Amino acid sequence: MKAGFRVLRSWRHVGAWLLLSLGLGGVVHAQSADSLASWADGPAKARLVTFVKAVTQTGGPDYVPPAERIAVFDNDGTLWSEQPMYVQLAFALDRVKALAPQQPEWKDKQPFKAALEGDMKALAESGEHGLLELVMATHAGTTTEEFTGIVKDWLAAARHPRFGRPYTDLVYQPMLELLVYLRANGFKTYIVSGGGIEFMRPWAEQVYGVPPEQVVGSSIRTKYEVRGGNPVLVRLPEIDFIDDKAGKPVGINQHVGRRPILAFGNSDGDFQMLEWTTAGAGVRLGLIVHHDDAEREYAYDRKSPMGRLDKGLDEASQRGWVVVSMKNDWNRVFGSTGEGGQR
Amino acid sequence: MKAGFRVLRSWRHVGAWLLLSLGLGGVVHAQSADSLASWADGPAKARLVTFVKAVTQTGGPDYVPPAERIAVFDNDGTLWSEQPMYVQLAFALDRVKALAPQQPEWKDKQPFKAALEGDMKALAESGEHGLLELVMATHAGTTTEEFTGIVKDWLAAARHPRFGRPYTDLVYQPMLELLVYLRANGFKTYIVSGGGIEFMRPWAEQVYGVPPEQVVGSSIRTKYEVRGGNPVLVRLPEIDFIDDKAGKPVGINQHVGRRPILAFGNSDGDFQMLEWTTAGAGVRLGLIVHHDDAEREYAYDRKSPMGRLDKGLDEASQRGWVVVSMKNDWNRVFGSTGEGGQR
Repeated sequence: MKAGFRVLRSWRHVGAWLLLSLGLGGVVHAQSADSLASWADGPAKARLVTFVKAVTQTGGPDYVPPAERIAVFDNDGTLWSEQPMYVQLAFALDRVKALAPQQPEWKDKQPFKAALEGDMKALAESGEHGLLELVMATHAGTTTEEFTGIVKDWLAAARHPRFGRPYTDLVYQPMLELLVYLRANGFKTYIVSGGGIEFMRPWAEQVYGVPPEQVVGSSIRTKYEVRGGNPVLVRLPEIDFIDDKAGKPVGINQHVGRRPILAFGNSDGDFQMLEWTTAGAGVRLGLIVHHDDAEREYAYDRKSPMGRLDKGLDEASQRGWVVVSMKNDWNRVFGSTGEGGQR
Repeated sequence: MKAGFRVLRSWRHVGAWLLLSLGLGGVVHAQSADSLASWADGPAKARLVTFVKAVTQTGGPDYVPPAERIAVFDNDGTLWSEQPMYVQLAFALDRVKALAPQQPEWKDKQPFKAALEGDMKALAESGEHGLLELVMATHAGTTTEEFTGIVKDWLAAARHPRFGRPYTDLVYQPMLELLVYLRANGFKTYIVSGGGIEFMRPWAEQVYGVPPEQVVGSSIRTKYEVRGGNPVLVRLPEIDFIDDKAGKPVGINQHVGRRPILAFGNSDGDFQMLEWTTAGAGVRLGLIVHHDDAEREYAYDRKSPMGRLDKGLDEASQRGWVVVSMKNDWNRVFGSTGEGGQR
């Protein structure tokens, strides 16, 4: 074992040497200046750059080894739009319509009736239980591979009601740049979302550069089965885990096993994730996207049913969290010109 | 978004270029010939090397992109010894003794009485329920950080009853070399164990080079709490997930979100993991450590209460899985000379 241990250690040294001597430092440097081009020069960008410089400065007082450079990002409202409704809710509603011919009783049964008629008021009135019933009926019953296909097909066809673009176009350009910037500085970037883990994984790698193993989310149970010699995982109509609020630190611990040093959210659902991240030893950074830009995207906070931000707004200052103003801190919101584009 | 996507893609190309042009290819090559020194030249080593060459040969018919090179390893009996009892069971028994002064009623209450008296027969008779009770009493009630400290302290002091060495010395040298070899060839190596995820994480990085986020295991629930301004995760006496048998593909899907291309186990608890891995498209490799070496380690299979290997032994040949003979395929078992050392 000792010999093996030495082998492992020496290999790590080789790896570090490779990174240092073969110019990755230069690459990181090249990244750091211009790669946050969609961020306005201002306090938010300055805090981000200062933090990254501090934790990556070898020999510096705030240096953090690459293995511990864990950055976690909420998804809905932090990496992509969550208005006028969560994308996954739009998916569920469309899925009810697609499945309705096989479920004739849904025409007269809530919450399905409301979903079929687009009656958002009745849907809201069905409450958490109704929503759960909707999720189970639309997200379970397939294999994991079938579900991946369903999500991909839907995303390819669906369009945002206001912007008329695919939802995966409505990811925030400044956040894409930040993900790249952090990874170029040795960070491992994770998504930690209340949304479904299997709803995000099919596209997160292509859109965000975040591989499936770095996606943490809510989940339903799955069951291993061998069907005619072919092993599959079947999605069951049972909640496994809700990755929201106090669930986020639990989900991070389960998947990552380390406390992050940077957390980025936008709603009170991210409060505990930021609290847990920034309470750790050493320098830490918590950030909140504040949606204050009705022109280019949406303006909402304390009273929004989706992405409500109230406590976070009250406590950000005393906790040292950065409130990122979409209006002032982002030169552009989305990645191409148009309503949300460059100004 | 499109622009951001291009940025991401071009950065990936830069990354690939760095790896290729800056000599990592050469490093991989240097690794491939000699780094499996503890593996005897024979069919098992040949299958491993052939497989790795096939999936890493750019442009070859069996090429697999690095992101999809997922290798999963059982822990007990595959990476380290599981005889005469699972290490985690030895931990639980010692923990009962350490906690007994605060629990005077344990003296007369099973399964604690059996644990305190070292009465393994009575312990076995307490069955699954008794074992569960033992785990809950010894693994819950602390914060995650406290538990990490308890595990580390115990491992530093505990000795294997036969070999008289720390348990972390009794990891298999050929497997350490294989982990390094696979990583040098672009694989991501995961532990997928029936053992507790929080029991393995505190030492897996140092001993195996496997970071906490690549450890999958059984778990109990945790709860986020803020104690006097200090956020903690408290370990609850409730089973969250059992990562064994049909649970292994479920756990892999939950944590990794991709089907592995290589799986290595040693008992029927790994059967479904190997089945799921090797049923995927393209070339796949399933391997089983066969403990047939009573002299250097242990000899057991079909009738062992720990690490029982029966169905896997029957079906390995027809499924194309490699049965690795500890006796014949490994030049050495542990990492230093002595009972299990070089021969």
